[in-house]
This record gives sequence, C-alpha cells and structure tokens, in this order.
Amino acid sequence: MENPVTVEVTRGKLVESRHRGMAVVVDGDGKVVFSAGEIEAPTFPRSACKAMQALPLVESGAADAYGFGARELALACSSHSGEDEHAALAASMLKRAGRDESVLECGAHWSFEQPALIHQARTLDKPSALHNNCSGKHSGFVCACCHSGWEPKGYSTYDHPLQAEIRAIMEDLTGAALTHDNCGTDGCSIPTYAVPLVGLARGFARMATGKGLEPVRAAASKRLIEACMAEPFYVAGTKRFCTRLMEVAPGRIFAKTGAEGVFCALLPQQGLSFAVKCEDGASRAAESMIAALLARHFDPGSPEREALLAMANHSMRNWNGLHVGDVRVTDVLFS
Amino acid sequence: MENPVTVEVTRGKLVESRHRGMAVVVDGDGKVVFSAGEIEAPTFPRSACKAMQALPLVESGAADAYGFGARELALACSSHSGEDEHAALAASMLKRAGRDESVLECGAHWSFEQPALIHQARTLDKPSALHNNCSGKHSGFVCACCHSGWEPKGYSTYDHPLQAEIRAIMEDLTGAALTHDNCGTDGCSIPTYAVPLVGLARGFARMATGKGLEPVRAAASKRLIEACMAEPFYVAGTKRFCTRLMEVAPGRIFAKTGAEGVFCALLPQQGLSFAVKCEDGASRAAESMIAALLARHFDPGSPEREALLAMANHSMRNWNGLHVGDVRVTDVLFS
Repeated sequence: MENPVTVEVTRGKLVESRHRGMAVVVDGDGKVVFSAGEIEAPTFPRSACKAMQALPLVESGAADAYGFGARELALACSSHSGEDEHAALAASMLKRAGRDESVLECGAHWSFEQPALIHQARTLDKPSALHNNCSGKHSGFVCACCHSGWEPKGYSTYDHPLQAEIRAIMEDLTGAALTHDNCGTDGCSIPTYAVPLVGLARGFARMATGKGLEPVRAAASKRLIEACMAEPFYVAGTKRFCTRLMEVAPGRIFAKTGAEGVFCALLPQQGLSFAVKCEDGASRAAESMIAALLARHFDPGSPEREALLAMANHSMRNWNGLHVGDVRVTDVLFS
Repeated sequence: MENPVTVEVTRGKLVESRHRGMAVVVDGDGKVVFSAGEIEAPTFPRSACKAMQALPLVESGAADAYGFGARELALACSSHSGEDEHAALAASMLKRAGRDESVLECGAHWSFEQPALIHQARTLDKPSALHNNCSGKHSGFVCACCHSGWEPKGYSTYDHPLQAEIRAIMEDLTGAALTHDNCGTDGCSIPTYAVPLVGLARGFARMATGKGLEPVRAAASKRLIEACMAEPFYVAGTKRFCTRLMEVAPGRIFAKTGAEGVFCALLPQQGLSFAVKCEDGASRAAESMIAALLARHFDPGSPEREALLAMANHSMRNWNGLHVGDVRVTDVLFS
C-alpha cells in the first residue's frame, strides 16, 4: 500500500513540492471512521505520545504529592520552545522533588524556534538541560521516580523501572507489543516504540473516554488531557502549532506534535481521536493534515472550522511580504 | 510516472521516514547518462541556478569594471549564511557601484544557520538586507544594472531589463521557454521559472563545457564556476553542504543548493552535470542524493569517493551524542 499525496506546496501556478502521508480518525470505541495510507505500518510516535508517558507521574501520586497543577502537568506532556517560563517551571518541578537540573538525562540544546533562540542567545551563555524541549517530560519522570522510591539515575534507559512501566502503559493503551525490536532511541535519549498509527489513535481515544482502562488510569488520563487544554502555552510555546490548535477551541481540542511529521489530536467531548504521519517527516505537512481533519468535525461556517481550515491551507509570503505560494491539503483528507 | 524513494531515514531497526525524488546526470553533450523519476516535470531551480543568474554581471563587463575577483563572483552565485564576511563583501560590492544596501530588493532575514544566527543575535539589533542569503546575488544584479546604464530600481521585477536578460540566458542554457506561465516569485522576490530538471542539468553542462554558447557566455560561465570552486565559503558558509562538497575535491566539484530540495552540481573536467529534486522539498534528502551521485564518479577507495559517500549516508546522533539512526540513499541512485 502506498501513502497518498495529502499536502501540496504551490509556487506561482504550479505545485512545487508534495507530501505523502497517512492519517486515521477513530471514535470512542476505537472504530476507524476515516483512514488514508499505511495506518497499520509501525510508526514512531516520538513526542506525540508524551501525555501517555506522563501517566506514571499522575498515577503514582507524585503529581499530588508535589502539588502540581495544570501548568506542571502540561509541561510534563510538552515539547516546549525553551522560553524562560518553560525552563523556570521545569526547574521548580525538580525542586519540589528535592532535585535540580543535574539529574536530567535529556541533554541540552538551543531553542528550535527563532524568536526564542534569539532571546536565549542574548541572555544565556549556553542552554542547559532545562531548555531542552523535553525538559518538562524529563522533570516529570524524575518526580515520578523520586515519589515511587526509584533511584532516578538511568531513568531514561530501557531497563529502568520507569521505562518498563511506561512500556506497559503504552501496550495497554495502543494494543501493540513493545519490545527491543520496535524500539528506537528518541532525541532526548528515552526509548521510543514504533506502533501502528491506528493503535496510537486508539490509545488516545482511550485516554479521552477512559473506556477499558483501570479507574486510576482513566482519571489520570483525563487530568493530563485537561491540563494540556487548559495551559496550551506550556505544551509548546509562543505561536507554536500545538498551542494555536488548542487555542482555537479552548477545552475542546487536545493536540500534540512529534518529530518526523507526527501529530495526534483529540476532540475529547466527541470521543474522537486523530493521528497523522507525514511519510517524509515534514512538520508543515503534518500540521496541515491534523488541522484539516479536525476542521471536518466543526460546523460549516463556525469560527472554529474557519480557523482550522486557515491553519490547514495557508499562503506563504517571502521576506518582502509578497504572496509566493500556498500550502494546501488535497481531497484525500476530505473524502 | 512516480518518483522513487531515494533516501531513507532510519531509527533503531526501522525506517522512520522516506523521501522520493528525481535525479539526472548528463554528459558534456547534454546526453542523459543517469536518470530517476520525473526529470521532465517542471521544477523550480530556486537558488540552484544562481550561477546562471550571475552571467549578466560578468558578460556586461561590470565584474571587470568594478574589479571583482573570485570572492565577489562566488558571492554573486551564493546562498550564504549571513556571516560577517558575507555581509561585508556584499556591502563592498555595492560600494564599488556607488550604491549601498538601501538599493537591495531582497528583504532582510536572520540567518538560517544556528551558529550564525546566535552570532547575529549577539551583535546585531536586527539583520539588514546585506544578511539576506541572497544579498550577494542581488548586489551582483545592482552592479550589472549600474554598469549597463539601467536604473537599478525594480531590478527584481519580471519586466526589468535585467530580468529579461536573465530570462533569455536561462532559455539559451536550459532549452526551456520561460514565460509568466511557469514563473513564480522566489523568496528574495525575483522571478523563478520552473524548467525540466534535465534542462537545468543541460544548462549547467553547457556552462561547464561552453559547447553551443557564444564565446562571451562560455568564458563568463567558466569564470563563475571556477570562482565558486575557488571560494566555496563565499558560496554558502561555515559547515554548509555546498561548501563542504566543493572542499572534497578543490577545483573539481561545483555544487549549489536551492530551496525545496533542489541541488545542482558539476564535475567540470569530465563535463558531467548533476541535478536532483526531492519531491517533498527536504534539503537533507537532496544533500544525500547529490553526494551519492557525485561519489559514483570518483575512483572506488579514493578519499574523495569515501568523503562523498560519508556525506550521502550518515548517522544521526541525539543531544547526548547517542547514535539514534541513519540517513541513507537507496539503491535507486546506484542502479
């Protein structure tokens, strides 16, 4: 099976580049209500599944013990831009557990976002692990370990009890077996497991509905999803696509991106779960795809639908502000 | 016709993302000696054809009148990183023509390269048009206009005599008709024309060999290509792929990238011309493709071939330096 062209990039009157991709929407019972492309092929969710990876933080009682509210939980599910607020909140999470950034195993990098990077360059000698886009997730990991009585050192490795627990959680949610065979190493050094895109969508549907989950897991899932929707800045950052998507319909859209062209989203009230992957790994295509799929589920003419369609199909301007072309989704996503 | 998968990106034991592309190699007579994918489809060369666009600067006598050497000519063909040396040289080119940056029509942007951007953020309030990656090309345009007695204002527009001359040059070189129908606007506001990839390759082959060109054009072409090979830093910048490719075999490889996954290259002594386009616009794929195609034409076991293959197929490391996967070309490029 081939992945269809889902996004085109035009220039003048011509298509300059095109992206292929896979996409799936499942309902609250996990039934596929829309699909395109290889939705059964193993796909690394990368950071798109951070809300799943944050479950031990809540299920263990660590989040309550350390007094975490929606912001801390959102940051634990985030791929943030390394803005001052993100780094400061990660530091404060670690402090609640009596730790500091030296315990983080994610490595350090400058922000991927130009305005944030310019600010960092002007205020920092160099970035620390707190500025890593995954520092919130890692801080959550450390807090879960400390509260559970596990030595945090090595928390990022396959055999650490935290990663074993995350593996069990993700098997429970996605229905896929996770082993060394479908395991890769993520940018922040933790294991990432390739699962069918439809399994990833079903896992998020379970998080939204709680169907088939133990009560503690169902409650923790609901709390994490609601935290992200309540604090979208802490899930990504200024002008980031995840943040903007969730701001379209506050409290009604959950969205999370992952590297290499992955995007997951939920309309929790409708029990609908969305997952897309751009075959070539392009974020611009994954963004258009997820926005277009979400738009279908808002009323024609509604501000939410119009806002989502404007994020799916948008013009490109050059350094002088001239319109040079468009990014647009193909009919595949509206069939 | 479909474009084949030419580059794969792996993680762990799996392929995480894949890129499709088209590629063509022609000999000094313009004969296709290798091809893959849609090489007759209209393709915007974008910045890959800057050496063609720089011909009026040399052919008009402006380059000699203003005393330009290899560095200035290389910068006129460049997509540079906005490093201090690039901006300073563009300013000095304009000064020779009695102009300054206020005449540039390319717009301003921060560097696309992280180290250069960090340096800019720490030393500039904001970037000027001199830091635009196209400022060398635009400075060359202004110099060509001034020497030719054309008012530079509007030099970036379709109907300006400079763009009309560039259009005629590119038709001569590529064999394609250039009109409003296949014209788009480039990032720096000048017209860009979609031509078959094989036509682009033939155009560069003519620049390398001079075959079928007027003597003035043949000489100017040779001078520009040699200037780029002599000053690869001024064609791109520190650690940039174009610069690194040309440093593999000094004076024997010409290479130039373009936005949306285009790359052109020459082995001038062999009269071989290479052009690739990644269907989805990814630079990482275009880079691997062009390096792999070039490698085939160096002796097995030679340092040049090994260096090029190492640029085509390379490992990816995360923030902690762990090996997480590889970028590798497929057999399509070695068939």
